Order: sequence, then C-alpha cells, then structure tokens
Amino acid sequence: MPYGKVDELAINTIRTLAVDATFAANSGHPGAPMGMAPVAHVLFNKFMTFNPKNPEWVNRDRFVLSNGHGCMLQYALLHLFGYALSIDDLKHFRQVDSITPGHPEAHDTPGIEVTTGPLGQGFANAVGLAIAQAHTAAVFNKPGFDLINNHTYMFFGDGCAMEGIASEAASTAGHLQLGNLIAIYDDNKISIDGDTKCAFTEDVMKRFEAYGWHTQHVEKGDTDLESIEAAIAKAKEVTDKPSVIKLTTTIGFGSNLQGTGGVHGNPLKADDIKQVKEKFGFDPEKTFVVPQEVTEQYHKHAAEGAAAEQEWNKLFEKYAQEHKDLHADLARRLTGALPEGWEKKLPTYKPTDPAIASRKLSESVLEAIYEAVPELLSGSADLTGSNNTRWKKAVDFQPPNLGIGDWSGRYLRYGVREHAMAAIMNGLSAYGTTIPAGGTFLNFVSYAAGAVRLSALSHQRVIYVATHDSIGLGEDGPTHQPIETLAHFRALPNFMVWRPADGNETSAAYYMALTSKSTPSLLALTRQNLPQLEGSTIEKGIKGGYVALEADKADVTLVSTGSEVSLCLEAVETLKKQGKTARVVSLPCVEVFDAQSKDYKLSVIPDGIPTLSVEVMSTLGWEKYSHEQFGLNRFGASGPYKEVYKKFEFTPEGITKRALATIDFYKDVKPLRSPLNRAFTQLI
Amino acid sequence: MPYGKVDELAINTIRTLAVDATFAANSGHPGAPMGMAPVAHVLFNKFMTFNPKNPEWVNRDRFVLSNGHGCMLQYALLHLFGYALSIDDLKHFRQVDSITPGHPEAHDTPGIEVTTGPLGQGFANAVGLAIAQAHTAAVFNKPGFDLINNHTYMFFGDGCAMEGIASEAASTAGHLQLGNLIAIYDDNKISIDGDTKCAFTEDVMKRFEAYGWHTQHVEKGDTDLESIEAAIAKAKEVTDKPSVIKLTTTIGFGSNLQGTGGVHGNPLKADDIKQVKEKFGFDPEKTFVVPQEVTEQYHKHAAEGAAAEQEWNKLFEKYAQEHKDLHADLARRLTGALPEGWEKKLPTYKPTDPAIASRKLSESVLEAIYEAVPELLSGSADLTGSNNTRWKKAVDFQPPNLGIGDWSGRYLRYGVREHAMAAIMNGLSAYGTTIPAGGTFLNFVSYAAGAVRLSALSHQRVIYVATHDSIGLGEDGPTHQPIETLAHFRALPNFMVWRPADGNETSAAYYMALTSKSTPSLLALTRQNLPQLEGSTIEKGIKGGYVALEADKADVTLVSTGSEVSLCLEAVETLKKQGKTARVVSLPCVEVFDAQSKDYKLSVIPDGIPTLSVEVMSTLGWEKYSHEQFGLNRFGASGPYKEVYKKFEFTPEGITKRALATIDFYKDVKPLRSPLNRAFTQLI
Repeated sequence: MPYGKVDELAINTIRTLAVDATFAANSGHPGAPMGMAPVAHVLFNKFMTFNPKNPEWVNRDRFVLSNGHGCMLQYALLHLFGYALSIDDLKHFRQVDSITPGHPEAHDTPGIEVTTGPLGQGFANAVGLAIAQAHTAAVFNKPGFDLINNHTYMFFGDGCAMEGIASEAASTAGHLQLGNLIAIYDDNKISIDGDTKCAFTEDVMKRFEAYGWHTQHVEKGDTDLESIEAAIAKAKEVTDKPSVIKLTTTIGFGSNLQGTGGVHGNPLKADDIKQVKEKFGFDPEKTFVVPQEVTEQYHKHAAEGAAAEQEWNKLFEKYAQEHKDLHADLARRLTGALPEGWEKKLPTYKPTDPAIASRKLSESVLEAIYEAVPELLSGSADLTGSNNTRWKKAVDFQPPNLGIGDWSGRYLRYGVREHAMAAIMNGLSAYGTTIPAGGTFLNFVSYAAGAVRLSALSHQRVIYVATHDSIGLGEDGPTHQPIETLAHFRALPNFMVWRPADGNETSAAYYMALTSKSTPSLLALTRQNLPQLEGSTIEKGIKGGYVALEADKADVTLVSTGSEVSLCLEAVETLKKQGKTARVVSLPCVEVFDAQSKDYKLSVIPDGIPTLSVEVMSTLGWEKYSHEQFGLNRFGASGPYKEVYKKFEFTPEGITKRALATIDFYKDVKPLRSPLNRAFTQLI
Repeated sequence: MPYGKVDELAINTIRTLAVDATFAANSGHPGAPMGMAPVAHVLFNKFMTFNPKNPEWVNRDRFVLSNGHGCMLQYALLHLFGYALSIDDLKHFRQVDSITPGHPEAHDTPGIEVTTGPLGQGFANAVGLAIAQAHTAAVFNKPGFDLINNHTYMFFGDGCAMEGIASEAASTAGHLQLGNLIAIYDDNKISIDGDTKCAFTEDVMKRFEAYGWHTQHVEKGDTDLESIEAAIAKAKEVTDKPSVIKLTTTIGFGSNLQGTGGVHGNPLKADDIKQVKEKFGFDPEKTFVVPQEVTEQYHKHAAEGAAAEQEWNKLFEKYAQEHKDLHADLARRLTGALPEGWEKKLPTYKPTDPAIASRKLSESVLEAIYEAVPELLSGSADLTGSNNTRWKKAVDFQPPNLGIGDWSGRYLRYGVREHAMAAIMNGLSAYGTTIPAGGTFLNFVSYAAGAVRLSALSHQRVIYVATHDSIGLGEDGPTHQPIETLAHFRALPNFMVWRPADGNETSAAYYMALTSKSTPSLLALTRQNLPQLEGSTIEKGIKGGYVALEADKADVTLVSTGSEVSLCLEAVETLKKQGKTARVVSLPCVEVFDAQSKDYKLSVIPDGIPTLSVEVMSTLGWEKYSHEQFGLNRFGASGPYKEVYKKFEFTPEGITKRALATIDFYKDVKPLRSPLNRAFTQLI
C-alpha cells in the first residue's frame, strides 16, 4: 500500500505532539522525535504486532528507544495507538507523579518495555530481549506451535553508538547471530556538543559489519517512507544476523533550527512552533491536536494487534492440550511465580559440614535448583571457573552452527563485558520468561554500575553473582579488592546486597533473590573457605539479620557479615579470656533486615549494649547498625589472604582490641540506645 | 642486526622468570608473559628509549601493559634493564608489602607508568598518555628543540578488546589521529572461559579500521622477530593514525598446556616447568636464572637510554637559554607544583552577590584560572554546555586537519564516553605535564566507576566535574538523578568528594583539587541556583567543613552540603518560630574534614548538641557526622525541581519537623557525645 496523506499527517502529528509537550514542560528533547517520526510511523504500523489493551502479551514485538531522551516520540505513539496514556498524560510530560517522566520508565508507563535514557542501556537491553525471545522460542515452540516469534526493534542515536556498553552488546549480538534483532541508527550527526565531527568520526556501519551485523543505509530518512519500509523488510529476511539500518535524518525536522544542536535538548521557541505547525498544515493556535483520521489509522492497527493476540490465545489453548507440561510451565513463568516446592531443593548445612568458599556454596545452590527452576539462566563475564556459575550439565546458549551449544541453552558466555552483561540481564528479565544470574568479581560489578542502577530503578529480577568479594581474594591485589563496592550498592534503592557467612545464608540469599519479583540482588561471595555456623538456618537468613550467638549480660554486640562472622565468633573466645562477654549478629543483607519490624530489629541489636561492626571494607554506612566500626578505609594489598587479613589486623586479637575500646567508651552513656533506635522514620 | 642466540636466550629468560615467580607465589598468570616475551624483547630493545636510573624522565617512551595480569612480563623486563627492582623482588611476587603486586601499580613500582589489571583501563590510559605527548609537544617543541617526541606503546589482549572502555578509547584515538600510539594486540585466542570462539568472534582488525586505525597482522608472533620488528617500524612510519598490530601468539608458549586456558591464570606444574626449562636450555634444578649475556645486552640498551637522557638534558639546558619562559614552565610542571600566585585568581563572593548555580560557579573558576594554570586541560563527555567546563577562549584539542582545533588545544571533546574519559584522564595525569578536568552529569560518573577507582588507587590528580548533582536537576527524572553516587565515591579511599554550597566553597574545592598532587577529586555541582552564604570563605572551605552559622546554646546542629545548606539556613528561621535555636554546619568535603584535628572537628560538630544531617540523597554514611539523618533513600521524580524538592519534604518545614524530633529524642541522653567522638581511631 503506497503511503499517502494520512501517513504524512500522522508523522506530523507525532512531531507536533512532541513540540507541544516539550513546550508545555519548558523542558525536554523535541529534536529526536521530530527526526524519527517517519521511521517510527512505518515501523509501528507496517511491522509491529502488539495489543495496546494488553501491553503484557508475551509474543508482542518489543520496541526499545535507546535514545530515551526522545521519549515524547514513544509517548505520542503509545497515546495514538490507544495505550492507557491519555492526552492529559502528554500534557503532564515531565511533571511530578505523571506517567510521562523525562525519560521512559518501564515500571510506571504501560507500553514501555525497559527504562532508558542513560545512553547505551537500551541498546543492550534490546540484545537481552532478543536473547530471551530466541531462548523462549527454543524451549516452547513446537511443530504447529510457533508461539514465540516476536522481533525486537530498537532505535539508537550517536550518543548510544559512542558508549562502550553498546559496543559490548553489539559484539555479543553479532556473535550470537541474533536475527530477531533489528536496530535503527538515527544518523543525525548531532550530539549535545554539536556536530559529531568534533568527537565521533569513525565508520559506524563498518564497525557493525566487523561485529557480524547485517547493515543497510537509508539516506532520505526524513521523507522516503518506501525505502525505510524496504530496509526493515530486508532486515526481517536476514535471520542469521542482527540488522542495523543507518537512517540519515534531520534532527528537529521542520524547525527553523533543524539539523543543529539547538533543537536537541531544548523546546522550540513560540514563533518557531508557529511556523512548524503552519508548515505541517496544523492550526498554530491549537495544541496537542490529534486529527481524527490519524486516530482511526492507529486504532485500526491496534485492533489488528488485539486480533493477533486473540489468535495467539487460541493457539496457546490448543498447545495446552498437546503440550500440557510446557503450557503449564510457560503460563506459570508469565505470572512471575516460581514452581511449587522449588525451595525444598535449597541445600542446608550443619555446623559439622566442612568449610567451603561461598562461591562454591553458590555453585551448589545452582546445581541443586537448576532443574526445579527452568527459567533461571546463568552466565559469567568470562570468569566461569572463578565465579562457579555453571552447573555441570549446563548447555551454553549459542547459535547451533557454532557447535558449542544451542538456543535452548541456559548458560550465557557474556565475554569480558560486565556492563553489557548487566544490561542484557535487564532485558532478559524484562522479557518475562527468564530470570538471569550473571557472574563477575565483585570489584568489576562497578564496571556495570550504570546498568545495575537500572536493574533497581526498573524493578528487574536480576541476580549479580559477585565473587572474590574482599581482600580475602588475596594475591590479585588492590586492583581487584573491593573497598567501596558494598557501600555503593547498599546506597542504591530497591537493591539487595547479600554477603552470606556460610551455606545456609547462601541458600537464604538465593531464596530471597529468586522470590523477590521486582528487586534485583547482588550476592557477594568469597574466594576463601568459610566454616558452617552453629546458629545459622535459611529461616534466620531470610530475615536479613539475626543473632548468630546469643549471650546473657553481654558486654558488647559484634555485628558482621560474610567471612568476618566466623572471625567474630573466634573473637568471642578471645574476649572471654579478657573477662568480657560478646554476642554476635550476622547481617547478611541490611536492606532485608531494615524491612523487619522494629521489635525484631531491636531484639537483634538491642538497647543497652555497645555495638562494634566488623567488615573488611569501607566502614561507610555501618554507623547505622553499630556504635563503633572496624573496617578498611584504604586500599588492600597483594598477598596470600591470611597474610593480608593479618596486615590489617582482621584477626580475633584485632577485633578484641577494638571491642574492648568500644566497651570502655560507652560504659557511662545513659541511656545507651541501639543504633537502630532513631528519632524519626526515614521518608519511604 | 639479525637476531641471534642471545635474543632467544633473553626471551626464554623472561619466560622462565615468569614461570618461576608464579610458581613461587603459587598464584599468577604465566601464560601472557610466555606468549608475549618475543614482542616485548623486540619492542624494548629495538624501539624504546628509557633510562632505568631515572624512570621519571619526561621524554621516555611509555609502555602500558593493558593486560595487566601478565605483569610478570613487565617485572622481568624492569629487572633485566636494571630498574630498582631486584631478583628478590621477583621472588616476592604477589607477597604482602612487595613492589611486585599481583597487578602493576604505578605508585609503588619504578618503571610502571599506570596501574592496570582491570581490563581495558590500560588501553585507555595509553590514549591519555599519547594525547598528553601530542599536547605537550605542541606547546613546548620549537624549531631545533624536538623536546617531546616519545611514543606510547601498549599491549592488550582479548579481554581488553572485549571491554567497552577500550572501544570508547579506540574510537577516540582514531578520531584524534594519534600517530604516536602503537598497540600490540595479543591474539592468543584464549580468555578465562577458554577459546574466545565462545563469546568473541568479531573481526577485531576490521573494527579498528572502522575507528580509523592503521592495522597490521604478524602471524608468527612466537618466533618471527624480524616480522615483529618490521611491523613496529612500519607503525612508527604511520604518523597520522594510531597503529595496532595483531600478533598471533601461543599463550604459555613452551608449556605442555600451551595454547589452552589452563596456562592463563595458574602457575605451571612442577613437571611442566622442568620440561619448559629443558626445552629452553635452562637448568631445571635452578630458579630465577638470568644468564650473564642477557644482563649485558639489556644493560647495554639501558645505558643507551641513559645517554639519550643526557643528550636530552643538554638540549633542555640550551632550550633554557632560547626559550626561557617555556623552559621554566615545563620544568615547573615536572615538579607538580602550580605557578606561584595562581590561587589569587580564584573568585570570591559576598553574601550580596546573586544566586548562581554551582556549575556556573565552576565555569567562573575555570575562566579565572585557565591562563594562570596552563597545564589544566578541561573537557566533557559531550555535555559541554551543561557541565560549563569550557572557558570562552578555549581551543579544542583536535588534529589540525579537521579545522576545529589543534594539538595545543586545552579542551577535549571526549564524546559520550564517560568511562574512557576517566581512564584517558588517568593517562593525562600520569604523563606528568598536564592536569585533566572532565565533565559529565554526576549520575554518569558511575559509568566511569572502574576508572575513577584507579584515579584514586594510582594517585592521579584528576578532577571530575560532576554537574546536575541531585534531584535538583528536575525534569530529566530518576534515570538521571543521583541517589547512591556520593555514598559510593565517599567510600572510595584517597578520593575527595566536594559538594560546594556556594561560590567561595566552589573556589575552595578547586583550590584543594588542584593542589592535592596525588588525590583525585569529584566536584558535585548543581544545575539550580544557590545563594552566596553569609559565613563562607575559601579559607573555611578548604577545611572540608566549618560552622556556617554559629549560635549560643543551640538546641540542634544542622549538618549539610551543597544546595541544602541554604535550605538549612532557612530552616533556622522556621525553628526559631518554634522556640528552638539551630546552628548550621557546611561540610563540602568529608574526606578533607576528616583530616582536620579532633579539636577542630569537635568545635564544628560539638558534644552536647544533637545533630541532624540534611542531604537530598542516600543517607548512607551520614551517621558518621550526625545523630539523625534526613535524606532520600529512594529514587527521585521527574518534574520542576522545586516541585520535586517539595514532594520529598526538602523544605524549611520538612527540615524543621525532623529537627524537632531529633531535639526531643536526645534530650535525656547523658553524655550526648558528638558523632565524631569515637572509641578508637580507624586503622590508617
């Protein structure tokens, strides 16, 4: 069907909505929506299948706006197609408590798949969505039941193209031959500093070819709808490679400032808006105008999407009859609930069991539960043998033609690409049928900080398996020994940092990580062996903190995590020789502990007893749980780990010395309140 | 001169030293040193000029081992050439307090230029070193005085090649046409997970071509010294592009496990060592053997380097006569001292001066000092207009043929590449003649966390200009509003986090950032306007914390930073209406405040008065400076900033409410100690 007046009108409607919304907000980015309206119109109407009345339908085509600052493009589309996003929502663009925030947020706005804006993230999220589709299809599709066959479409701009995370993700997608992934590169030659020639003169398409992508170039991206359509159609035909279409566009198309940085991040001026609307045949006196024929065309396509979902639902019912177990499995996964009884597989330990490194304990959990939790996809950023993330019978997720795995494989080889790994995991989680866990050293989760933040903000159930969690890693030295890392991630909202002290606590960490549907987790795990504690159980562990050793009339409470808990238990004996009684608290996850009742928390860290925290890294934040802190506020050292611990006095004697000072210092304070006993409750 | 027996012997000496050291440490990476010994031998002996007796000579060729886990290669070379690194130091590889830690650390080991190991960092550091050379040459070289003409050589492996930071840096280097940069890509096809075909199948050389690099391939990297030499010679001839030489090598060359992952990160077994030594003609009973003829050859080259420095010193003396001012400037820069009197240029403000955003105050500082501090190189990751990092007359650092700047330019356009920017700045600082400052939004400094950490660990004088520092950025919303970021960087050792409250504090922040020769700084700056405070001066600011408003018989101390200090001053008035007296403390830099005397600190936050901290982000860590905390332990919101502040009760009323609760809660505690009054001093 040739393109006509309604198409032009629709494209200009998107443009004027973006102009009006940014003007009303006195803030925002009109340039990208005005430049990308044509390709968005073609893509959404000619290629994408989705049902605005059910944005959660699993086989919908996914769309990711990696250049998320152009979100008015997406909000306009969502409105036009009839998602639950009204014209009033557009009028409240960038206002407090609106569903149209300054950058797209998956959790708050129907039809937004992933949270973007921080550049490059959406690119890598899209790779994750495409991996999830390929994997889910391999697991569930059967002859006659092509249940899962959606595509992932993604827009990105020069900013995303410059970010390392997008390079990592593009290399990964090329390696994985993700033919279900189609990206549109908005080649508008403008970034915030102006012409991209000041910093970005590489040959982007050649780079993508080097990664193994199929590349095309559409030169007249502002107007040539036929060529745009032909290019996307061609990209869909290429099923053994991801595709990128370089689309040369004019940023802010229609504005007097089109093609300049002036239209990137600032609303248009009033007189410019007037001429834009006149140029497009819109009444310059009116705002937020949606012509009836545009609404009709878009609603018609939406209805086709609803019908497609209807068809799919029928197919899925038929599937229930022929593939009962698979049907039940997929239906269950879509609710986010885990298989009944899976938690019974979690390993438990007795104090008499041998000392084991928590990275190995984590491996035992994966080995124990991988069959019971089929949606769990593990992986590592090239540290498989060190992170212990791979169960013995795991199959790699790989293109079958490489001969080293297949699409149904549940183990991902992310390569040395921590940032992309994290953002790919966000995409895997967002798809809705898989739960990703990915490993690296704790110190290198910091490379992924930008994406970890978005796991939390967008409520993704993602598990970071972070081994080698302290100076206890020993010889690799200060470049690899985390000091600031746990403080960093403990300060991140909606994020659980676990540092288990033994096997039961490791199982507890996995229990909480897997059952918390909208909170990501980080598991900080040791390289060195840890004894199994006397007082630990999974039940205690899932409270985030508990009394590991109780004592009557205690002189001091030692609060600790991970590898230092057993050290504190040793220090209890040393203190006893000094005539002092200590109790020990294990606090594997402060965020979960914070959520317990005040009564419970005060039973763990009670009033009247001075408290010393012990953790071999930055003390920052420990003042919340202890009167005094023993930690490491400097970089570590390279050497055998016991030597390193000794150098920094992390020994029973070193703890005892500080515990005695703590007891003495607080002996005359009345009342001596628990550090948890506070004047007021924090907001939220 | 053709290669002969001594060359082979030297190469095998490096290999056996790596084998012996990793075996003695029972830890480390023999594979890369064994594979890269030939290219290292050729490069260091045939191409590099350096003086082991003076590792600081400014015009030395720079060498960066980006695959830093192979550091025994570098330690062996340093020993053989006669740097202050003895055979005993090699025997203490990876031992506590040795100068041969598990990864190379610039600060501790003579001859190590930059701290590497975290993959990809060294790659980007090398780009920074090359930029610094090009810039320094443009500023100081004159006809007849080719003072600064060194090359930067860098080795990297598959791990570095996969990291996004290296992609960003490679794109930057290509854009900048850095002909003085020569990289050797160790194409050994092995990473920790085994064969790179499991995750890394892109065409690396094609990618570098896309970036604008000159590429070559040497196939027999294990043995073909002539081809290695020819390739490096060719790379030196290419002066308008950075060069990469793909060198196909065998990891762990000589071992029974050569060419496998087994030799990457584990010492060789005893019997394997035996056969390696026999194969190489070494006595298998002896360890750490350095044949006399190898020492002679290497010391001969070292002597040539010492002579070259002698020549250079003569040239520099002559330069002193013909270019007195330039000579004095370069000589001064090499001491790390700033020009005398520069600090007099720092702007000062009176309370009657208008309210100004601290990002603009930062711009005023740069505008005021750029002439006085010629070694200061500013820049931004594509946010120049938002970060306000560019003084009006700034010239861009660009290849002259682009027509938009030149090599002497002092403003760097980093592109949207935060991680590479940070690591390039580490290289710029390490070169010794420039002080880099680079801007992005505070939230996106997190993208650069891996490199920021190394700024701190390796003692680089780097300045992070981090604007849009809170929910105060408003409409861009939660994806851009930092919550956890300051806690993260405050937990990082040897790092100053500044959050100035007004103009005088902003000047104080720059004063400390520029005069702290071995500590990097982050300046958290507002988008919104801030009033000039009554009690602020530069002198008070450089103490890191001071009393902004004193009061007799105060009921409460409000401790705050940045944009919330003036809010606290408003709250004082609101509290007065409730009959309560408050004093206000401004704490622009807790790290610098921590370093003051205990007496001074207790005069600022004294015993006997309850303390409430106020900062619009995570409260984590504020317990150290206050009894109670008012902060934001959730993600922010998109909207006009005053609305967002109001939503979260960051208003005089919101502060007052919490201050009253604080006063009430502590009224019966005796003694009420200052939170700074502690039981024992932290270790280091």
